[in-house]
Amino acid sequence: MEKYDIVIIGAGPAGLMLSTCLARWGYKIKHIDNRSEPTPTGRADGIQPRSLDLLRNMGLKRQIMAHEPAKVYEVAFWDPGTKGIHRTGTWASCPKFIDARYPFTTLLHQGLIERVFIEDIEKHGVKIKRPWTITEFNNNGKDPVYPVEVSLAHVDGTLKETLRAKYLFSGEGARSFVRDQLGVKIHHKDPIAHVWGVMDGVVRTDFPDIKMKCTIHSDAGSIMVIPRENNMVRLYIQIASSTDEDWNPRKTATTEEVQSHAQEIMRPYHIEWDRVEWYSVYPIGQGIAERYTLDERIFMGGDVCHTHSPKAGQGMNTAFLDAVNLAWKIHHVESGFASRSILSTYESERKLIAENLLEFDARYARLFSSRLPSAGEIGGANTSTASHAAEENDFVKTFKASCEFTSGYGVAYNPNSLNWSPTHPAQSPLFLHHPHGTVLRPGRILIPSTVTRVADANIVHLEQEIPLNGSFRLYIFCGNPALTARAVSDLSAHLSAPRCFYSRFAHKDKNADRYHEPHNPHNRFVTLCTILAAPRASIEIQELLPRVLAEYGGHVYADDVWDARVPEAKAAAHAKMGLNEQRGGVVVVRPDGYVGCVVQLVEGHGTGEALEGYFGAFLERKRGVGVEGARL
Amino acid sequence: MEKYDIVIIGAGPAGLMLSTCLARWGYKIKHIDNRSEPTPTGRADGIQPRSLDLLRNMGLKRQIMAHEPAKVYEVAFWDPGTKGIHRTGTWASCPKFIDARYPFTTLLHQGLIERVFIEDIEKHGVKIKRPWTITEFNNNGKDPVYPVEVSLAHVDGTLKETLRAKYLFSGEGARSFVRDQLGVKIHHKDPIAHVWGVMDGVVRTDFPDIKMKCTIHSDAGSIMVIPRENNMVRLYIQIASSTDEDWNPRKTATTEEVQSHAQEIMRPYHIEWDRVEWYSVYPIGQGIAERYTLDERIFMGGDVCHTHSPKAGQGMNTAFLDAVNLAWKIHHVESGFASRSILSTYESERKLIAENLLEFDARYARLFSSRLPSAGEIGGANTSTASHAAEENDFVKTFKASCEFTSGYGVAYNPNSLNWSPTHPAQSPLFLHHPHGTVLRPGRILIPSTVTRVADANIVHLEQEIPLNGSFRLYIFCGNPALTARAVSDLSAHLSAPRCFYSRFAHKDKNADRYHEPHNPHNRFVTLCTILAAPRASIEIQELLPRVLAEYGGHVYADDVWDARVPEAKAAAHAKMGLNEQRGGVVVVRPDGYVGCVVQLVEGHGTGEALEGYFGAFLERKRGVGVEGARL
Repeated sequence: MEKYDIVIIGAGPAGLMLSTCLARWGYKIKHIDNRSEPTPTGRADGIQPRSLDLLRNMGLKRQIMAHEPAKVYEVAFWDPGTKGIHRTGTWASCPKFIDARYPFTTLLHQGLIERVFIEDIEKHGVKIKRPWTITEFNNNGKDPVYPVEVSLAHVDGTLKETLRAKYLFSGEGARSFVRDQLGVKIHHKDPIAHVWGVMDGVVRTDFPDIKMKCTIHSDAGSIMVIPRENNMVRLYIQIASSTDEDWNPRKTATTEEVQSHAQEIMRPYHIEWDRVEWYSVYPIGQGIAERYTLDERIFMGGDVCHTHSPKAGQGMNTAFLDAVNLAWKIHHVESGFASRSILSTYESERKLIAENLLEFDARYARLFSSRLPSAGEIGGANTSTASHAAEENDFVKTFKASCEFTSGYGVAYNPNSLNWSPTHPAQSPLFLHHPHGTVLRPGRILIPSTVTRVADANIVHLEQEIPLNGSFRLYIFCGNPALTARAVSDLSAHLSAPRCFYSRFAHKDKNADRYHEPHNPHNRFVTLCTILAAPRASIEIQELLPRVLAEYGGHVYADDVWDARVPEAKAAAHAKMGLNEQRGGVVVVRPDGYVGCVVQLVEGHGTGEALEGYFGAFLERKRGVGVEGARL
Repeated sequence: MEKYDIVIIGAGPAGLMLSTCLARWGYKIKHIDNRSEPTPTGRADGIQPRSLDLLRNMGLKRQIMAHEPAKVYEVAFWDPGTKGIHRTGTWASCPKFIDARYPFTTLLHQGLIERVFIEDIEKHGVKIKRPWTITEFNNNGKDPVYPVEVSLAHVDGTLKETLRAKYLFSGEGARSFVRDQLGVKIHHKDPIAHVWGVMDGVVRTDFPDIKMKCTIHSDAGSIMVIPRENNMVRLYIQIASSTDEDWNPRKTATTEEVQSHAQEIMRPYHIEWDRVEWYSVYPIGQGIAERYTLDERIFMGGDVCHTHSPKAGQGMNTAFLDAVNLAWKIHHVESGFASRSILSTYESERKLIAENLLEFDARYARLFSSRLPSAGEIGGANTSTASHAAEENDFVKTFKASCEFTSGYGVAYNPNSLNWSPTHPAQSPLFLHHPHGTVLRPGRILIPSTVTRVADANIVHLEQEIPLNGSFRLYIFCGNPALTARAVSDLSAHLSAPRCFYSRFAHKDKNADRYHEPHNPHNRFVTLCTILAAPRASIEIQELLPRVLAEYGGHVYADDVWDARVPEAKAAAHAKMGLNEQRGGVVVVRPDGYVGCVVQLVEGHGTGEALEGYFGAFLERKRGVGVEGARL
């Protein structure tokens, strides 16, 4: 029986993201999908700002952008008036109070996005088998290293295959064989279900906001307008609701009925269709899976675990983040870095996000069916208005929280072994935490900042400098190098000590030539970045930095680029992180980009010991339990 | 005998750029090259900031960047010291006083750049024939529409073809059959010739600036270091000079000799080579062709017309700009828009640039072999220093002018029919000219600015909004729309009048469906952009703008994005152009991106008449002399 690290069922966003990560990190993958081709038309299409950061971090953003997707910077609200609909306001889709590198939503057909992943997966030697399906699985433990037995079959039943794996992942979508077999229940949070019609195509219209995202309410019904690549537009139209008197989840409508309904809603404007690329009607209810895993060997993610309305464009994005969250944890366990206990944080972290998503989804529906705040009320949130803070009423708070959520920057994982808090096993007065001492928060994404790379003087985005390589990220903000030389040298001495988290996982083949290895010269567990609050021209890496840091020659930065968000700061990246520009600080970021902990940079053993404490909560005590990636 | 619009000889940068432009605009092209494959290694590799603007304007930047080229932001200078070389300073390669969208040089192997063009050409139906060569040509006028007869042959002599064409272009490189046959002489400006060695490869070294562009002088000789894609570096090393006592233009050196010489120059640092991708030795002298064309039917460009040292990385960039300059002029003559007289401006404009390039090349050589200015002296030019103006001595002026030149932004065409000046046939007090009234200068590139596109609220780069579509660009800066409504309406009335430059060239098939045509809804002669000094949310295109402007729905912009270069301005794009933020102004930009004229926006006939006067200097009086692109 052939053995794999993981079997992945389903090549939608969740399955593809997991496969891409693990293929890059060297794992042996069996990946199947029951469709004979990738998504040809329709389905999800919204990439949120946070997801675009992630795609760039994987080096896939350029391929996405090559398709010239539509970009949504603002959302327009249209309400009924005396002569048909009229615009009542516009809001930024990712307002300025969110510090986003890409403050817009990217709209592109799911099939094109999937193809970008498929090409990348194939480049790393994995070929998705189609149309294949899963017929049986069992964590029978007959082989302790490969405890899961999985049977697969061609959908026509002619071919069958049984194999063993360390893990099984279901990214099958809302109808999941794996979830059913495991007997995991779906809870329906909001009892209201809807039937949606969705239509992609090219229109001609005098409606002025056809290139914007719009929510249109009229006496004749409601529509959501979403611009697309290729001069297309998507219309979402609600066909039935379980609150209707004649509710029937099988209610449908023809293309012509939807078009004529849309025309009625959009009066006094005219809309006609040059072509329809895709049209579908589907009932959808809010649902969330009770569990994401029962045994930490068989996992589920994406639509298998949460379903909701398509309006907020969150489905694909949440699936991506589910998969990345799981990918690095499997990687760290299988590399012998982390104890198996971190696998339990997949469910606890991601289920919380799904619960938030469903609550948000219901709130979003209520928000759009009630009165809208005026431009004055939302103040800084409106891109066209100066950002002087308006008095924040509950309504505005809800709106702002929604923007954070839809942009993807609202994701905040609760404290656990990976996300430091005062209840974490590691106790040291040197941990900095919000709001005392830093604006960074464990469990939230690292704040973006722009710095100068010392080696080549390139102006770069610090948060993107370490690619999604599966390693933890240790950002050593050195402050003023003249003041912190001793502290930096003490920390470096700690990193070089044999029992340190940094040295324990050193590459086994110590004599291999790693001269050209930019991100992992010493180990695959962590990648270091050093940021000095000094002008680039004043920094001589070899003279200023201890060897362990200097060997990351391409990861030393000058914090000398002015930033409009902290106009008074001399070291803007330090300032944006809430770190002292003179004294610096150390930031640990998880492999998926979320802050783990923030520690003061001090002379002596304190900083190193605090970091040791943080990692000690979840690292393997002994070296050599696993292997560093199946093929590496 | 088959007939073509143009025969292009040579598929280097000049030939490829010309072919790409004309293929996109619908011309029938015969394109040959005498090499059997595109450039496999080596040759030119520097894309200057201005060229990157151009590539982006052609939609080719993303494909270039997909190869992950090296980016040079700074140049480091190393001089002999007591213990070997030491760094004496660094300069920004495109300092802040130059308002560049991409303030860096992009380094990528010429072959990869060529392939991007070749793919684009093939997409437009042109296939480059290889290895074919030109054997004979003659402007014999036997066919008045296709006066040029050209004979081509496979390099092995087995196949021959004779055809007729409207134009012949030689982009053959320094050794040009066409130039020789025409008897056009090369003038040698600087009598000093050099033999250069150039080596591309991967090195390991403790030299700290190996990722920067460096000029290294030592007692053992001089080197130029240029970083490349794929972790490579290029070294230029001077092997012989005609000023040497034993000068021999055939002097050469082996790979090992150059490597050991480089090691000697770079002491106290060590350098060794993992691999050498390309190594070549070639003698080069400065030369400039007397003429670029004799008859305005047979043209030459690129290295055929100018050769110089490779140090400043200008060769490919100058070739690109030669070709674009010629391409649009041929297009406008063949479309029946412009009179044949504009073809004479190809030589007058581009030969001036080549002369400047050769002068600069000689000056650059002197600059680098003499004392270097200190950081204090260059003041604002140094990226690491605040931009308070240092006292400008001659040396600093030379340096700044050099930066402008090497970035490509120093190109300034002299006044002629296309570049308005007080001596232009069009006389009106409404023409604005530097330094009175505007910072824009005819003959120079349009200044970049960032605005909000009204239709979709996207933040966009105004200078990139019209792609390289062969059309003139008319930017109507409306200032405060409440104040200028009448002026805008008067100008629009002028544009709509039948004899106006705008209406004369209207599409002939008036009933064709152009609803989805974004850039040329009315004609192919000019594309309009309207920029209002008002917040986006306040702009209702259909209500505010006359129909001729409103029909460019995707080309209406709000000038409401703050710009650090004009921090006090409320309408930053207006302010950057030197236009009154209340009153606006009209800017005509040539199809290649250079400013043609700037006119005040006033009520009445004045603005329209001034524009009419400008275009009247070179447009065909009658409609219908040519065709709008061969296939369109």
